[in-house]
Amino acid sequence: MELTLSDIEDAKRRIDPYIHHTPILSSSSLNRWLGHDIFFKCENFQKVGAFKARGGVNTVSWLLENGERPKRLVANSSGNHAQAVAYAAKRFDISATIYMPEYSSKVKIQATKGYGAEVVLSKTRDITDELVREAAIEEGVFWIPPFNHEQVICGQGTAAYEALSELRNVDGVFAPCGGGGLLSGTCIATKGLSPKTMVFGVEPLNANDAAESLRKGGIQRLPGVPNTLADGAMTMAVGDITFEYLKQLDDFYEIEEEYLVYWTQWLTHLLKCRIEPTSAMTMEAVRRWLQTQKTKQRVLVILSGGNMDQVTTSRIWERDCLQIRPKI
Amino acid sequence: MELTLSDIEDAKRRIDPYIHHTPILSSSSLNRWLGHDIFFKCENFQKVGAFKARGGVNTVSWLLENGERPKRLVANSSGNHAQAVAYAAKRFDISATIYMPEYSSKVKIQATKGYGAEVVLSKTRDITDELVREAAIEEGVFWIPPFNHEQVICGQGTAAYEALSELRNVDGVFAPCGGGGLLSGTCIATKGLSPKTMVFGVEPLNANDAAESLRKGGIQRLPGVPNTLADGAMTMAVGDITFEYLKQLDDFYEIEEEYLVYWTQWLTHLLKCRIEPTSAMTMEAVRRWLQTQKTKQRVLVILSGGNMDQVTTSRIWERDCLQIRPKI
Repeated sequence: MELTLSDIEDAKRRIDPYIHHTPILSSSSLNRWLGHDIFFKCENFQKVGAFKARGGVNTVSWLLENGERPKRLVANSSGNHAQAVAYAAKRFDISATIYMPEYSSKVKIQATKGYGAEVVLSKTRDITDELVREAAIEEGVFWIPPFNHEQVICGQGTAAYEALSELRNVDGVFAPCGGGGLLSGTCIATKGLSPKTMVFGVEPLNANDAAESLRKGGIQRLPGVPNTLADGAMTMAVGDITFEYLKQLDDFYEIEEEYLVYWTQWLTHLLKCRIEPTSAMTMEAVRRWLQTQKTKQRVLVILSGGNMDQVTTSRIWERDCLQIRPKI
Repeated sequence: MELTLSDIEDAKRRIDPYIHHTPILSSSSLNRWLGHDIFFKCENFQKVGAFKARGGVNTVSWLLENGERPKRLVANSSGNHAQAVAYAAKRFDISATIYMPEYSSKVKIQATKGYGAEVVLSKTRDITDELVREAAIEEGVFWIPPFNHEQVICGQGTAAYEALSELRNVDGVFAPCGGGGLLSGTCIATKGLSPKTMVFGVEPLNANDAAESLRKGGIQRLPGVPNTLADGAMTMAVGDITFEYLKQLDDFYEIEEEYLVYWTQWLTHLLKCRIEPTSAMTMEAVRRWLQTQKTKQRVLVILSGGNMDQVTTSRIWERDCLQIRPKI
């Protein structure tokens, strides 16, 4: 059954006591240079530093609302979803075990443990997937998947819901695509609140399984671990639930790595925020779309998160992109 | 005549329509690790990306209030003060010429020009100082100095004023020291609003002219351009007006460069903000002070700004400080 605005509104009501209503920032310089109005919904200031807190909290809260109180929550993730489930578990006083690959950023492992979750490290992503599957068989254990779950999707959609409740007459909404949870929720919220507003997905060209899936009309898997700075968009394939919403997008952009670096530097500089490359890459899609527009547009960008380790930060700032300022 | 709280309140009234009321951020992880409550007044989100906008706008607005409308504003600065004067000039529709050394960060030169100011570049700081002095002789030209001016000081003091109007029972306020404008204003605002609250100054050990001046009881000049990442604290000497307020500080800390790097990484990571090393260094002073405290303290940190070029950012993130988490 297709999710609707009222499902997003239910999620919003559930999560409100546990998450931040994040601010919307703008840069007057950027708006002047591009000649359009761009609004950034800053999920980097969200609990755990990313929109993922919304989906995690909503799913647990929905379980409890339906009289199911798991003995234990489990999840498999190398990144922000691990922290989100650990955070949700802590807030609802449920124990949690998170299966993470060893190569996950130490900052994220540390933060996940910091919320009180047990962290089990494995050599590869495949092993973590296997372990979580086994753990989930046990009675009383609930597995919160990172994107392919209706309540996760509804939680993620509350970011766009909040922003579009504050902003009027938005012409286009842009969000990055990993497994498609954020984009699916954004799509449902936007079509419900503001039907004329277009919704666009953005993916790194080097991890373009969603774009390939849309082109071929069926879910495609990446052939191997992709080479991209956008660790939030490295998911190997979208899910069957999210894919149905991705088909409703107005357009989809695939972005080269150099622009991830360029926009991470510039948005950091202009907004004075810590911004993940996964979030920053959306601005290149915005720029390309604006090039095709003849009138002044109002654009909403979902800045998905701000978690980045030292290695990625150092790679982002290796060379100077601030010498060439953004233009259409 | 000594400045008082009512001078800060006048400044606050003057600048309110032109500047941001910046947010106060906290990190629950940091507070948990240190066992105290630390509040960050985020002047990195201020107009021009630093508290300097407050002093610039207040001084121009004060001139106009007193019936003086300069034909032209001039200033000499390699950094945030240049942008602040350019911003103030633009807001009050006065032309401005800013004298900057060639080695100023290109991002700051670009931003200063972006506000419509004429920028004159010179080989050395001494030449810019000479040029601004000459320019200021001309009739109708007003020179806004970077710190040693009562209205600049009152403007800068509005940051602490705003924060202390929102927060109750703050035990200590920490701010970085360049020329002492921010600290002087912070001192006046704090002693006026919350007389029991202590005020602390923080300087890089490698540019410790203020600490030396306080030790020797007279203004000392740095022997040469200091080697520090804290470009906001590179001022060669404090001023005669600011020195009188610096003498009223409860204590003064001198911080080694390695801690500038450590805290810039950690505060960026925890607060998800872009933070200058000049601002971040204050946290090491906070930590040292907290080590001497037996009860839970409430601390206010004035995060002075978030303007940093690629070279400095790259140096900050060369090695990983996020492996060792903050502790008392």
